[in-house]
Amino acid sequence: MRLQVKDVDIATGNTLVAIMNELDAKRFDLHFEDRVKLKRYRKEVIVIIDISENSNFIPKGSIGLMEEVLSALNVKDGDNVRLEFEKTPKSVGFIKKKLDGNEISKNEIFEIVEDVVENRLSTIEMTYFVAGCYNHGLSLKESINLTKAMVETGDKFNINRKQIVDKHCIGGVPGNRTTMVVVPILAAGGLTVPKTSSRSITSPAGTADTMEVLSNVSLTVDKMTKVVEKTNACIIWGGAYNLAAADDKLIRLRHSLSLDPIGMVLASVLAKKLAVGATHVLIDIPYGKGAKVTDKKQANKYKDLFEKIGSKLGMKVRVLLTDGTHPIGNGIGAVLEARDVMWVLEQDKRAPCDLREKSLELAGEIFEMVGRAFKGQGKRLARFILNSGMAHNAMKEIIKAQGQKNPDLLAGKYSYHVKSKVNGKVKHIDNKIIAKIARVAGSPVDKAAGIYIHKHVGSWVRKDDPLYTIYANSKQKLNFAKEIAKNSGYFF
Amino acid sequence: MRLQVKDVDIATGNTLVAIMNELDAKRFDLHFEDRVKLKRYRKEVIVIIDISENSNFIPKGSIGLMEEVLSALNVKDGDNVRLEFEKTPKSVGFIKKKLDGNEISKNEIFEIVEDVVENRLSTIEMTYFVAGCYNHGLSLKESINLTKAMVETGDKFNINRKQIVDKHCIGGVPGNRTTMVVVPILAAGGLTVPKTSSRSITSPAGTADTMEVLSNVSLTVDKMTKVVEKTNACIIWGGAYNLAAADDKLIRLRHSLSLDPIGMVLASVLAKKLAVGATHVLIDIPYGKGAKVTDKKQANKYKDLFEKIGSKLGMKVRVLLTDGTHPIGNGIGAVLEARDVMWVLEQDKRAPCDLREKSLELAGEIFEMVGRAFKGQGKRLARFILNSGMAHNAMKEIIKAQGQKNPDLLAGKYSYHVKSKVNGKVKHIDNKIIAKIARVAGSPVDKAAGIYIHKHVGSWVRKDDPLYTIYANSKQKLNFAKEIAKNSGYFF
Repeated sequence: MRLQVKDVDIATGNTLVAIMNELDAKRFDLHFEDRVKLKRYRKEVIVIIDISENSNFIPKGSIGLMEEVLSALNVKDGDNVRLEFEKTPKSVGFIKKKLDGNEISKNEIFEIVEDVVENRLSTIEMTYFVAGCYNHGLSLKESINLTKAMVETGDKFNINRKQIVDKHCIGGVPGNRTTMVVVPILAAGGLTVPKTSSRSITSPAGTADTMEVLSNVSLTVDKMTKVVEKTNACIIWGGAYNLAAADDKLIRLRHSLSLDPIGMVLASVLAKKLAVGATHVLIDIPYGKGAKVTDKKQANKYKDLFEKIGSKLGMKVRVLLTDGTHPIGNGIGAVLEARDVMWVLEQDKRAPCDLREKSLELAGEIFEMVGRAFKGQGKRLARFILNSGMAHNAMKEIIKAQGQKNPDLLAGKYSYHVKSKVNGKVKHIDNKIIAKIARVAGSPVDKAAGIYIHKHVGSWVRKDDPLYTIYANSKQKLNFAKEIAKNSGYFF
Repeated sequence: MRLQVKDVDIATGNTLVAIMNELDAKRFDLHFEDRVKLKRYRKEVIVIIDISENSNFIPKGSIGLMEEVLSALNVKDGDNVRLEFEKTPKSVGFIKKKLDGNEISKNEIFEIVEDVVENRLSTIEMTYFVAGCYNHGLSLKESINLTKAMVETGDKFNINRKQIVDKHCIGGVPGNRTTMVVVPILAAGGLTVPKTSSRSITSPAGTADTMEVLSNVSLTVDKMTKVVEKTNACIIWGGAYNLAAADDKLIRLRHSLSLDPIGMVLASVLAKKLAVGATHVLIDIPYGKGAKVTDKKQANKYKDLFEKIGSKLGMKVRVLLTDGTHPIGNGIGAVLEARDVMWVLEQDKRAPCDLREKSLELAGEIFEMVGRAFKGQGKRLARFILNSGMAHNAMKEIIKAQGQKNPDLLAGKYSYHVKSKVNGKVKHIDNKIIAKIARVAGSPVDKAAGIYIHKHVGSWVRKDDPLYTIYANSKQKLNFAKEIAKNSGYFF
């Protein structure tokens, strides 16, 4: 059957969809989410059907095509296309199998992931896949195969170095910008670190947001390669690439209900490391009250699985369990965090000790992993590199190679000091409330918005001492943030 | 923040979506599937964000709105709207709760169903709800509350009669058009039967498709009421109403993976009965090899739950377990089935006995349920009504009231006789293969396409006797259908 193309001028980069008039759908016995093949001369593309009840939008005899479909068929508004029925892809059966609680094979997982990447599955079908993985978990084998499938179906970063190191933090702790201290230390120590980071999803700032204060972070693969060849390292936004392309699509679906099926989290992290060719990976799992991983048992489960799966994938993976109960560093929010990082690298006396010490620990661990330092000596090597100014120089080189910005690193125009109402000792700082206040103040969109912590856990304070300062770029946002602070019970 | 409206000229009748430019999304820290409130003067509407990477489609500073959103805000292309952040609805938390395997309360279910009907949930969120119900099942309480919630949030049919009867077959058996025989018998017997039926989803024809051969089936609620007031009954397409509106949306999501969570199936059936005000409901569950319900244990589970939940909802529900292993009637496909039905009502000698006897059984059961016949006497009453010609008259009245068509009831132009290659006895007829052949021949789109069965299970046949005839409206479709028959192993 033939239909006339209507250019619906949509391009969302997701599943390929064609929109039909309700009457045509009935005539062809097609239902919502059925698949059809569209053909024009030798070109063809498989699309999923959406049905429009509005015949002004899609008249009878027409088919509404999105930009991706138009270009796949090389057609334009008014052209004719031929429609043929198309079977459901086999991967849909494998998704059902997983949802029913059965283990799925390597080939089955590869087929699912390939169809995810190629936009052959509908949102509904992909969501059932996530639900199946969430409800039944993934076996060790499945996690390994999922990781491999995500790497194989995405872009890869190739650089001819014997050792490539990487680090990852599973997140949940405000501040904690260790990557931006660790990477220049490692690079100055001669290691290769092609680091890709994410932007904030639920935190006040991700590493990519913070690095973006200092330099460009959206690089082409060519440019990324040049930066790493020149400086041994980079700190860029991973979202600009198709490394483990399926992962981003699956994360989006998990995001709706904040689902973190452990096997998917593992595959997600390790696939991105494998895709940059990492040989040695250090993973930081902050745990404890207020962190993403709340108890040590769960943290150890992650540790165990990361190391097991990592070794099956040919990577040396080491996991550090760290204290995740309170923020790391003083600044929360992109500019304030970037300032902390630079102070650490410049050995400025305003540098937060906790951020420096944790970063040295992580860098030291990596030096030991790759055999650059004897066991127990890595942190000393890292400290030497930091104190010698080599790490600061490495960071300046990385920034310059990526595309330097010249920020003033000034916090938001409007500020408010939250003061202690009593004499005493700071017992606890709630990660989630701190994150929320910083977000409401404007983070991560307003890079200069956020919080500066004056008193950490364990500090003695007097009445009227400032505990922390909220920064915002508008009075309204500052007031909102004050409101959150007041209602949190932490506003003394 | 303010954005300029771009009319994207889409109206799919689903979730309310607004499309933003990628850069704006970043600027406002909005992600795919986040919710925002759009305001214009006093009007406001909550929408879910989709992000376009194509700034020709949605330029920076614009927001793409679908027809439903335009009319809710009373805005047009070029107008300005205000955007505010909006919290995730509480129902999303309840969906998570269900997905995690916990029972959800009445209020929680009502909130979910209301948000489904009001298009406040994204496809992803609704899919997780179905997945949760599928993986963990629904408790008796949950099924009851889901049924009630679907009835409350949809349209209802009101007619002032003391007893309202209804019947339902859970399907899966080709032919089996008992409804069209049972309803006129009941109507002629003085019972009120406002019957709504579905169109075919996976079978060669649904009752609505078959009735459509004889009369109009898409009626307004007013017209439906008039038909029932005049003739005691109707046989119409339920899809024209919003009876249990949430159900159709959930069925669509189940359809992708052919998921039939038992609690949802029960709620789906009973909600539609409750919405037409049914007091007495007979449910036909064909079971056995090749039927939807394959074993007696499962059939009894359905029976038990239907009766229990029905009584909790104030309806008298009786369930008959019937033989579902082979087709009922001779004709498969809308025209051929309509012809069988009319032959039964007209007491034509070509009428298929099995369709007549099963219909009399069902009608008799209902006469006994409502107290119009003593136990064991219902079928005799039904047969009397049929033989007296009263049922045929009732059907003619219903057809006339709904809007009569004058079909010739001729099968497709092209036909092919499938003949027996041996002498012997017909042991088995496979429902699924018969359905597939009829579909490939053009059913239900070509109403005249289908199959006519000459020899039923148990019949003795000689070599070269015709077993069944395939009818189609095009040679190509006939050939396709022959191919399927050949490959099925049933082509002797």
